[in-house]
Amino acid sequence: MLIVMEQDSSPEQLEAVCARIRAMGFTPHPIPGAHRTAIGITGNAGPLDPREFVVLPGVKEAIAVSRPYKLVSRETHPEASVVEVGGVKVGAGHFAVIAGPCSVESRAQILEAARAARRAGAHMLRGGAFKPRTSPYAFQGLGREGLELLAEARAETGLPVVTEALDLRSLEQVLTFADCVQIGARNMQNFALLREVGRARKPVLLKRGMSATIEELLMAAEYVLSEGNREVILCERGVRTFANHARNTLDVAAVPAIRRLSHLPVLVDPSHAAGVRHLVGPLALAGVAAGADGLLVEIHPQPEQALSDGPQALRPPDFEALMRQVAAVRQALVA
Amino acid sequence: MLIVMEQDSSPEQLEAVCARIRAMGFTPHPIPGAHRTAIGITGNAGPLDPREFVVLPGVKEAIAVSRPYKLVSRETHPEASVVEVGGVKVGAGHFAVIAGPCSVESRAQILEAARAARRAGAHMLRGGAFKPRTSPYAFQGLGREGLELLAEARAETGLPVVTEALDLRSLEQVLTFADCVQIGARNMQNFALLREVGRARKPVLLKRGMSATIEELLMAAEYVLSEGNREVILCERGVRTFANHARNTLDVAAVPAIRRLSHLPVLVDPSHAAGVRHLVGPLALAGVAAGADGLLVEIHPQPEQALSDGPQALRPPDFEALMRQVAAVRQALVA
Amino acid sequence: MLIVMEQDSSPEQLEAVCARIRAMGFTPHPIPGAHRTAIGITGNAGPLDPREFVVLPGVKEAIAVSRPYKLVSRETHPEASVVEVGGVKVGAGHFAVIAGPCSVESRAQILEAARAARRAGAHMLRGGAFKPRTSPYAFQGLGREGLELLAEARAETGLPVVTEALDLRSLEQVLTFADCVQIGARNMQNFALLREVGRARKPVLLKRGMSATIEELLMAAEYVLSEGNREVILCERGVRTFANHARNTLDVAAVPAIRRLSHLPVLVDPSHAAGVRHLVGPLALAGVAAGADGLLVEIHPQPEQALSDGPQALRPPDFEALMRQVAAVRQALVA
Amino acid sequence: MLIVMEQDSSPEQLEAVCARIRAMGFTPHPIPGAHRTAIGITGNAGPLDPREFVVLPGVKEAIAVSRPYKLVSRETHPEASVVEVGGVKVGAGHFAVIAGPCSVESRAQILEAARAARRAGAHMLRGGAFKPRTSPYAFQGLGREGLELLAEARAETGLPVVTEALDLRSLEQVLTFADCVQIGARNMQNFALLREVGRARKPVLLKRGMSATIEELLMAAEYVLSEGNREVILCERGVRTFANHARNTLDVAAVPAIRRLSHLPVLVDPSHAAGVRHLVGPLALAGVAAGADGLLVEIHPQPEQALSDGPQALRPPDFEALMRQVAAVRQALVA
Repeated sequence: MLIVMEQDSSPEQLEAVCARIRAMGFTPHPIPGAHRTAIGITGNAGPLDPREFVVLPGVKEAIAVSRPYKLVSRETHPEASVVEVGGVKVGAGHFAVIAGPCSVESRAQILEAARAARRAGAHMLRGGAFKPRTSPYAFQGLGREGLELLAEARAETGLPVVTEALDLRSLEQVLTFADCVQIGARNMQNFALLREVGRARKPVLLKRGMSATIEELLMAAEYVLSEGNREVILCERGVRTFANHARNTLDVAAVPAIRRLSHLPVLVDPSHAAGVRHLVGPLALAGVAAGADGLLVEIHPQPEQALSDGPQALRPPDFEALMRQVAAVRQALVA
Repeated sequence: MLIVMEQDSSPEQLEAVCARIRAMGFTPHPIPGAHRTAIGITGNAGPLDPREFVVLPGVKEAIAVSRPYKLVSRETHPEASVVEVGGVKVGAGHFAVIAGPCSVESRAQILEAARAARRAGAHMLRGGAFKPRTSPYAFQGLGREGLELLAEARAETGLPVVTEALDLRSLEQVLTFADCVQIGARNMQNFALLREVGRARKPVLLKRGMSATIEELLMAAEYVLSEGNREVILCERGVRTFANHARNTLDVAAVPAIRRLSHLPVLVDPSHAAGVRHLVGPLALAGVAAGADGLLVEIHPQPEQALSDGPQALRPPDFEALMRQVAAVRQALVA
Repeated sequence: MLIVMEQDSSPEQLEAVCARIRAMGFTPHPIPGAHRTAIGITGNAGPLDPREFVVLPGVKEAIAVSRPYKLVSRETHPEASVVEVGGVKVGAGHFAVIAGPCSVESRAQILEAARAARRAGAHMLRGGAFKPRTSPYAFQGLGREGLELLAEARAETGLPVVTEALDLRSLEQVLTFADCVQIGARNMQNFALLREVGRARKPVLLKRGMSATIEELLMAAEYVLSEGNREVILCERGVRTFANHARNTLDVAAVPAIRRLSHLPVLVDPSHAAGVRHLVGPLALAGVAAGADGLLVEIHPQPEQALSDGPQALRPPDFEALMRQVAAVRQALVA
Repeated sequence: MLIVMEQDSSPEQLEAVCARIRAMGFTPHPIPGAHRTAIGITGNAGPLDPREFVVLPGVKEAIAVSRPYKLVSRETHPEASVVEVGGVKVGAGHFAVIAGPCSVESRAQILEAARAARRAGAHMLRGGAFKPRTSPYAFQGLGREGLELLAEARAETGLPVVTEALDLRSLEQVLTFADCVQIGARNMQNFALLREVGRARKPVLLKRGMSATIEELLMAAEYVLSEGNREVILCERGVRTFANHARNTLDVAAVPAIRRLSHLPVLVDPSHAAGVRHLVGPLALAGVAAGADGLLVEIHPQPEQALSDGPQALRPPDFEALMRQVAAVRQALVA
């Protein structure tokens, strides 16, 4: 923490700030300057709230200098982590594509989608059994039946299953059936849910909230790790901005930015960022080129029949074509 | 729903779109224009997803024209609603101020805060017993003990108590002790929680999410009403933007905008929007002037000792001064 | 400037950073901490670019601590400034309302608008002769003829005239006719234009850019003051966010935030923030309650005939009613 | 334009809206629905302002359905355009990289940068002679001398020169020396400048404004084309959002979105989006993967000596490595 005093602050105000710092158990380091004095603080184990100091008389600004996360940080864990989901590795050079429909809708649909995912070379199957819907009147998912259908699709195709838990009740069921628990963007700061998956022994796919900073995403992951579960995969899925040509604005810079700060793997979800099919391919390739450890892509055997998000789902042949391009771009990067 | 065809779309494409609309059980109404043709859709009970049509060949755009909410809408309920919390009315001309500390920290602190709130003329007491914190290492609230202290403060001052529930577990306890359940910004789309408070017989204070549109806020309220609980108070608390001079950007236009669309009362929370004490007063007065039905204000007997959000808490004398200004502005509006 | 070293940075890297600081002519102040070392910099007259240091090996972060503006700052000029426009004072307790149509459209229209403004108690007349329009096909203003009509309206009503200059060519004409030159949001960082009005002897009304920070707005004003013109009035007119219920999101907190940082007066423009008539009144009152030194309001004798922005223009009777409420709120604040 | 009536609107209100549409010279098409009536409008040549109708009694919403731009639209010009700059083609499969320093600083610097650009395979040289700087106290560029140095660098390397014009004065000089005029993000809606380059016979590189929608960018280009200059290259350079890990949020989806709406070529500028060197490479590759027609990259022979934006400039060896990756990704896309 660095505290900057007002130009016209008095020596008494400076001393009062130093006294307060000492009272908190830390050490103040005054740095006199030409126009004003700054005070460095040392001795604190964790981060301090800058606003604690801004409200003291004579203080102009207080600036945090240490990061609030620990377990997710590259400083404490310099090597990239590998997370393993049902035998599939993600991170540290291991690239994984998770594909499937937005929602599990029927036995035929999920099996057909799983086969298409497998055929195109995807590594895991996604599909929602519990759906977070903006409207209480919209389709809310098949629930437990959806989980059973996912398990059946896994049995047939061998693809590990990733599916979302919305709350403590659905989490219990998801943990029984799935290989990886997805925490959606709307739940990124549902701390009770984060703690609970932190106590589970299953990998977690944690999506960035719609207006979360990178730091907040990492702090949400820190909740999971702090409970003992280190198997966390992060996912950039677009943020909310004024721009209206896509559903969300895919923030590709988040991928290299997270990689620098954290050892956890990072995926990109081009489908929710795009919102419409014709943008999914370009965004997927952009995510790969920016260095993502994998993709989360919505596909549907018949998008026009989908009960949710059909317009952003790729058809199987388009997904196969995309997978070929993804592989080519991946190779271009290492060449 | 209005569908706009591409300029160079063919008559066959137009017919295919109409056929799809009929297959969905609705009626297409082609509107030929100078440059292009549009198709109106009628017969649908609820809203349609525009993207269903955008993906059809020859379609340029599809535009939703009906609102997705019903129970919260002024169209179905033209008069402003009054919500009653422990005998205090909010809405339709009834103005209420809810004041108290961010967190309940100790018996002495909450009693002193409650007395200060009462003395200044506040109508209800707030205070968090369960705290949603960005960091797992930060103070998480006193839990049940905090609820008991709130009840004690209510017993002494007569002020009804508003406090936040974070999840289904804490909700049960909050329902036992509090007069009104707060659903925080981070939980605005925690649909399991919304449904559960919808089944409760207690008023709900629902805060707008950090990047939620007005429509999403109203849809979140619709979840509560659709379960049978019509006692919902909305709260604008600032949204996340690029602006960095306040913690969040208070969107005062949300107050008159919500009032036009919905019959539910709307409060303003200047404290979380401001993030620092010196902005709280101006934002509170701006909210009142924009027509808010009340305020949610953080106060603390000794802000510099606060365990959370001390820098944005008003001291009792400042809160008293603010309450006098609030009353004067309220009177100015009706004069 | 404060530089924060990586945890695992070497003593050599620390010394290299200090050497670079000395090479720039400044003094480094290393502050060793438990986990990492920080370096304060003193001796620099103006602000440094943090990124200069971030790129050095072993540096984790570099944080600016001094403000880049001088002449507009309250630190160098603690008393609030009063700007005088054709005899009307703005700032330091002097409240002024500038009213008139978006564009000057005809002799009858501007005279009628000016009389309505005068009658309702406005202090100055606004009206665009040169219009910045998103489309090249939209009405671009009457140009010089519009300026002459404004001068005629001033002669009849006695109201000083505020009108926008778009470029160096229109500026010359505006300076001849108007009492105050408006620099619009789109031109807030048109530095050539800012320098030129800085050399003029007329007051300037500078509107905040659509996504400008407070600091950028103050730096734009600094351009004007640095050329010798200290008569600058700032104006908050809403910023661009994801929110779609108003044309722009009025950032009322900007008013008290600017007041703390700068001595210049600040107005609020509720009309461009609202975009629709029914939001103008609440936003105007919110701006006044937040402490604005005045308002910039669009009025039109017959909004449905307006050539631009008719939907956000108030009709004369509504403006009169608003002016009464504004006066009442102003009195409430000082009571 | 589609107008949606309120549920409880009267037949008289419906008729009044239809009468108003007819008075404007257009044709109303009422579409009665189960709950409400909509009215389609045909016969208008250009776009209408939705707000014209929203303010009429009984109207709930008015929705624009036609695009306001013409000359830049793919509807009027289905084939992708090729813009030629000093013999270098951009667009329709022709990929071009423009590289060079932020500012021209000295003869040695620009020559060295130009040689490095040439050596790495860049197709054009960039470098600012007139710099738009947030602070009036920052380096403002060498002006005419900078243009002469750019011309000298072109003479030696054969690379066509792209440089920014800030206003009508600098434009005249830039047109004399440069092969392509850059209009920067801050000037995207400087309509006088857009009109003037529209009358010039030189290609224009038009950068997206910091908070401009795609539609506004296309309308700005429409200004240039409407004056007769069809040689416009668009450039995505990041938009302003709440995210703080990069200088701006690169909106890669803008590339495929623009391509669908317009025939003009689109470049990506990873340098201004990144703001720091380590993000430039990933963003450049992401832009290429999303389908950009080229890149605008800042390089500097000695970034630590740069007078502006040194921290985001690539060193020559890093730029060469990036160019190899760019070529590989380009090939991967067409494979």
